[in-house]
Amino acid sequence: MRMAELSRESGVPVPTIKYYLREGLLPAGERTGRNQARYDEAHVRRLKLVRALVDIGGMTIAGVREVLDAIDEPEPSLHHVLGVAQHGLPVLAADPDPAGRDWAIARVEEVAAEHGWELKEDDPVVAALVGVLCVLRDLGNTVLADRLPDYADAAERLAEADLGILDGLTATESIVEAAVVGTMLGDAMLAALRRIAHQQASARRFET
Amino acid sequence: MRMAELSRESGVPVPTIKYYLREGLLPAGERTGRNQARYDEAHVRRLKLVRALVDIGGMTIAGVREVLDAIDEPEPSLHHVLGVAQHGLPVLAADPDPAGRDWAIARVEEVAAEHGWELKEDDPVVAALVGVLCVLRDLGNTVLADRLPDYADAAERLAEADLGILDGLTATESIVEAAVVGTMLGDAMLAALRRIAHQQASARRFET
Repeated sequence: MRMAELSRESGVPVPTIKYYLREGLLPAGERTGRNQARYDEAHVRRLKLVRALVDIGGMTIAGVREVLDAIDEPEPSLHHVLGVAQHGLPVLAADPDPAGRDWAIARVEEVAAEHGWELKEDDPVVAALVGVLCVLRDLGNTVLADRLPDYADAAERLAEADLGILDGLTATESIVEAAVVGTMLGDAMLAALRRIAHQQASARRFET
Repeated sequence: MRMAELSRESGVPVPTIKYYLREGLLPAGERTGRNQARYDEAHVRRLKLVRALVDIGGMTIAGVREVLDAIDEPEPSLHHVLGVAQHGLPVLAADPDPAGRDWAIARVEEVAAEHGWELKEDDPVVAALVGVLCVLRDLGNTVLADRLPDYADAAERLAEADLGILDGLTATESIVEAAVVGTMLGDAMLAALRRIAHQQASARRFET
């Protein structure tokens, strides 16, 4: 298909597709003339994946490129791709104060010990969690930080079954892609559901 | 305190503070001279809140302003502020195709019926959830969409206890702020924990 049809099929505007081509997020089409190229279903699919990661996952272009590079490796390791998909969590710009940081790390270690989790010190996801706890403490909102064990229980229950999903898939490529999509879109699904549940609980409590 | 000290106390650079002042995210200080103003602890606190919403919550400046306006109302209604904090969820830029949309709405209505949730049709959070499901379907990843009931259970369990936190607070202002912070930072806490749990489950499964 031509560029115009690729745009229609994927729902992505032509200038955006050209931008993704320049940024290396989309492989070049098969050249058919001086200014023309032909694209196929793989391009449509890749465009949809990029949009999902950018729009719903809130990933940066650099983050998406890193994930796609991992997916496109000849023999992608699922564990490696999952590792890459872990990045892109928001982190606080400013360094937390050391006292807050020590306090937060102690809370995370407590929860990790309860669940038998082995955390790596330089893990960006652990750093993101520590950052969230530091901010909560800094804002005087330690009651939410106190619920860390409940949140960890919920996360663990979901994660076990999330990994189970992958057993149902066959081709390596689809497993890797499903893992990335599941990580990013699962966050979005859970955030929306948690807010709906808040709304309902709030309406029951505060409205008459 | 002067601007320089406000910057030190809050960890926010002076140019950023000036930007927030211009954008109305921070009330003006008490004018003490031609180019000088005095700030107090309330400014430090407000700056930390803005940073948390922007850095961790990923909110836009417009979104933060809307939340702060609701917090600053003379008699803020918790239910209203919670409503405002619901916004800012990522939504897909392109409209989903109608068949996908109908399918997604049916799934959401099923889960809502199970939980006794009363959803409003024009609710942006419901739209965000429908959008996520449409993308999953479009990417052929309906196995994660099939886990919607599990995710809804987890969200409901967390939300009930989240609302319980508010009972422990006293001043209306702190309740409203805690609700906003809890909504935004709770998402981030849960996303980080879910990824840590994925890592652990993945390491157990795929590494030897």
